[in-house]
Amino acid sequence: MSSPVTQQPSPQLFFQTINAYQRTEGLKAAIELGVFTAIGEGKGTAAEIAQRTGASERGIRILCDFLCIMGFLNKDGGGYSQTADTAMFLDTRSPAYLGGAIDFLLSPMLREPFSSFAEAVRKGGTTTPNGSTVAPENPIWVQFARSMAPMMALPAQLLAKLVDPAADHKLKILDIAAGHGLYGIAFAKQNPQASVVGLDWPNVLAVAQENAQKAGVSERYSTIPGSAFDVDYGSGYDLILLPNFLHHFDPPTNEGLLRKVHAALAEGGRAITVEFVPNEDRISPPEAAAFSVMMLGGTPGGDAYTFSELERMLANAGFTRSEIHPLPPSIQQVVISAK
Amino acid sequence: MSSPVTQQPSPQLFFQTINAYQRTEGLKAAIELGVFTAIGEGKGTAAEIAQRTGASERGIRILCDFLCIMGFLNKDGGGYSQTADTAMFLDTRSPAYLGGAIDFLLSPMLREPFSSFAEAVRKGGTTTPNGSTVAPENPIWVQFARSMAPMMALPAQLLAKLVDPAADHKLKILDIAAGHGLYGIAFAKQNPQASVVGLDWPNVLAVAQENAQKAGVSERYSTIPGSAFDVDYGSGYDLILLPNFLHHFDPPTNEGLLRKVHAALAEGGRAITVEFVPNEDRISPPEAAAFSVMMLGGTPGGDAYTFSELERMLANAGFTRSEIHPLPPSIQQVVISAK
Repeated sequence: MSSPVTQQPSPQLFFQTINAYQRTEGLKAAIELGVFTAIGEGKGTAAEIAQRTGASERGIRILCDFLCIMGFLNKDGGGYSQTADTAMFLDTRSPAYLGGAIDFLLSPMLREPFSSFAEAVRKGGTTTPNGSTVAPENPIWVQFARSMAPMMALPAQLLAKLVDPAADHKLKILDIAAGHGLYGIAFAKQNPQASVVGLDWPNVLAVAQENAQKAGVSERYSTIPGSAFDVDYGSGYDLILLPNFLHHFDPPTNEGLLRKVHAALAEGGRAITVEFVPNEDRISPPEAAAFSVMMLGGTPGGDAYTFSELERMLANAGFTRSEIHPLPPSIQQVVISAK
Repeated sequence: MSSPVTQQPSPQLFFQTINAYQRTEGLKAAIELGVFTAIGEGKGTAAEIAQRTGASERGIRILCDFLCIMGFLNKDGGGYSQTADTAMFLDTRSPAYLGGAIDFLLSPMLREPFSSFAEAVRKGGTTTPNGSTVAPENPIWVQFARSMAPMMALPAQLLAKLVDPAADHKLKILDIAAGHGLYGIAFAKQNPQASVVGLDWPNVLAVAQENAQKAGVSERYSTIPGSAFDVDYGSGYDLILLPNFLHHFDPPTNEGLLRKVHAALAEGGRAITVEFVPNEDRISPPEAAAFSVMMLGGTPGGDAYTFSELERMLANAGFTRSEIHPLPPSIQQVVISAK
């Protein structure tokens, strides 16, 4: 115990944590009502924001005070204003607007397992039927591809720069569980000699193809519809991307898949894994480490894997060497593995 | 903007807050499974805790790591241990155990309004029928009286010492919406000449009477069953207690009730209000200020009132002077108002 003897025990953390769900719901309500955008447009008082959002003044006053307490707004002389982060990420007029991510992050599919989380802890995996999020052709991944894309553009760019800095060679790329497709598309945008094959469920690939079109790279973007565990990848890839894929499955399942990845790579090819990677203590950094909770609730056997765990799976699948790289400001990390 | 120009905008607070509900569910699951008690009994590894709690090792490992991230456990060399606060408040073997409070704090009645919180903000009050928690004879108050009592014993004692420090005079006390009865009972325990009348719904008064019995003061404890807005209080009280009552109602409703309180007091009598009282900015201190969110979700017109608002209601009801006192370590405050 490092705390001084005079410090009294306090139940504050207990109360804060028990009421933490109200933070989620308060932020969700503010996004749904367009409170941040209304304030960005210059509506500063509770009465003005209420009028603009079609809500009651009392409700807006209490909600906006709560948003101040949580750090999403500032308050000064009765008027509310945006913080820098709020203006960037929660005002719909900002190109970096992320509010739409709640359609995925707070979807019933992702939240439902938490309504009886003790059961998931007892069982050691998701309590929802068919393995929840990893069920075949789950429409949640279309929602994912649409609503999470805005926050993937930057890490995808950073990844392409890290892995293909010169961008002056022909590259054949397979993007496994491409989703929105932005990781593969970032390589294609940066390197005119890069061609990308996106692999995902057919309904999800439609979103990736839309994004390839928007990015002007659709001529170098092709697709393989189906499950990454079942379909034929083809061969001779320089890069195979695994962005946010391995965390859904247990290590033996991942090793089987990684052997297939290894076989599909050309000599000198590399597997590129993007993941939440906790330190070996599994409790830091907090955001990456806490991702395991989402995997306990939402998958039969997924996890937030440490680097040594990822390295072992990759080595067991035949990769000779794996290196980990941060991807700031993203809290995710990249593991680059040589065939 | 006080942040340096080099600081990049970050979506971290957005993600943390959107996922905050997982904190609530993780802590709830740990209490339900008896994880804290198992660790207090010396079960340190995930395998040991899993065996003791009848849960899976994988589930326990992920849950306990999350509890470390949230600050409820420490981790050292693969083993988990309690923090001082956890040992005091979350181990069922501790006399100060508070875990049972989730039966009230996370009851469907209290949580339901948050499942569509934007609607409550639009409307400016609870969206559940019959005014939710303030509906007549709502059984939630029996649950409140039973599950919240452990955390009220200390503030009740502190209140009795503050208001009746000499404890050497005859005192006639009315405890409005007595609930568990502990506030009135604390006065009776401290002062052998104090007699208490508890007022609440009949089903709730049964709990208060049990507690009076346990405290050995049942001979000086009587009851008035019914609504504080309807029943006859009697008269000549030295003290009328209003613990956590006014926050459920709007100011005009409270003023009507306070006039009735004023009339029932003897000359020189005092009304004793216990409340979450935010500062005049309404956003500090955070815990007291955020209580307004619970009132928006759960009541038609309740609030966390500032001292000036409480003072105004009390003055309009005829009280000549009100003083506010902190009640550390409780985050609540006491307003003492002279007739």
